[in-house]
Amino acid sequence: MLTYYTATTLDGFLADPEDSLDWLLRQPHDEDGPFGFDAFMAGVGAVVMGSTTYEWVLAHEGGNWPYSLPAWVMTSRNPALVDGADIRFASGDVRPVHAAMTAAAGGRRLWLVGGGDLAGQFAEAGLLDEVVVSIAPVTLGAGRPLLPRRLDLQLVEAGVNGAFVGARYRVTGPLLEDRS
Amino acid sequence: MLTYYTATTLDGFLADPEDSLDWLLRQPHDEDGPFGFDAFMAGVGAVVMGSTTYEWVLAHEGGNWPYSLPAWVMTSRNPALVDGADIRFASGDVRPVHAAMTAAAGGRRLWLVGGGDLAGQFAEAGLLDEVVVSIAPVTLGAGRPLLPRRLDLQLVEAGVNGAFVGARYRVTGPLLEDRS
Repeated sequence: MLTYYTATTLDGFLADPEDSLDWLLRQPHDEDGPFGFDAFMAGVGAVVMGSTTYEWVLAHEGGNWPYSLPAWVMTSRNPALVDGADIRFASGDVRPVHAAMTAAAGGRRLWLVGGGDLAGQFAEAGLLDEVVVSIAPVTLGAGRPLLPRRLDLQLVEAGVNGAFVGARYRVTGPLLEDRS
Repeated sequence: MLTYYTATTLDGFLADPEDSLDWLLRQPHDEDGPFGFDAFMAGVGAVVMGSTTYEWVLAHEGGNWPYSLPAWVMTSRNPALVDGADIRFASGDVRPVHAAMTAAAGGRRLWLVGGGDLAGQFAEAGLLDEVVVSIAPVTLGAGRPLLPRRLDLQLVEAGVNGAFVGARYRVTGPLLEDRS
């Protein structure tokens, strides 16, 4: 069970064109409320992210690595290592990464931290099960896209947490052909 | 009170790159449910739209004009007229259009039908009061942007209607400067 759990702007951006999240971090919310991070994270057994997300996390955390779970970083670059962190670098096909994550997660869910294109790659491989978004009350007009693919989703639940609208979707597949 | 009431994809598109709404029109919903069209429209006294929206409406309605309310179409093109329809063409500054709509609306609200850039123009002039979205369970990855500006919003209410998440926002202004 791979879940893309992320915040997004109302107009579908993960970050602004300079990869800033300052528009996000000042929004009021309750980590323990609906769609909150803590309850989600308690069910996660492994994480995966792209290289931009990895570098953002390191910069944001002052060079420290915040996750104790096994982590995969999809990258064709040669990123910095973090002492003591449980991180594997990988590139190319996402399917063996998904298999290795599943084996490492001990029956718990897999978290796709970001970014959008990596989510699209998992979706194309039929391996993205859920998209859970916290929609910030902001439009940016430009930036890093949430999920740059044509996909059909199914709404499972929605709710409000502070300034955010939260929504959980099942990924049902590529967008149906137009019926007109 | 000018409200931008529209459907959007989860990734912030009003229409696909060919201006198709086929991904939208097949989604189940209740016109009388939360954020439904009928209750909204009952409070509207005048409408405004851009030229792409105007041409889409005409094509979608087989050349007929579906609105009896006074309508403004912002266009620098020379669009087709519709016999018997209460339509004014305008271009340039949106402020005199807003004033004329307010005078015509008899105290009722103004509906900005689309598109996104026109919404941005009203927002820049400080004349966009509300954004009400029905978020379809679809990502497109490309298309006509919902609101191509940096804006701060304030969530007023949210709910579910069929396949859609509905949300109402107050426009609070241009995006705050980053505080980092």
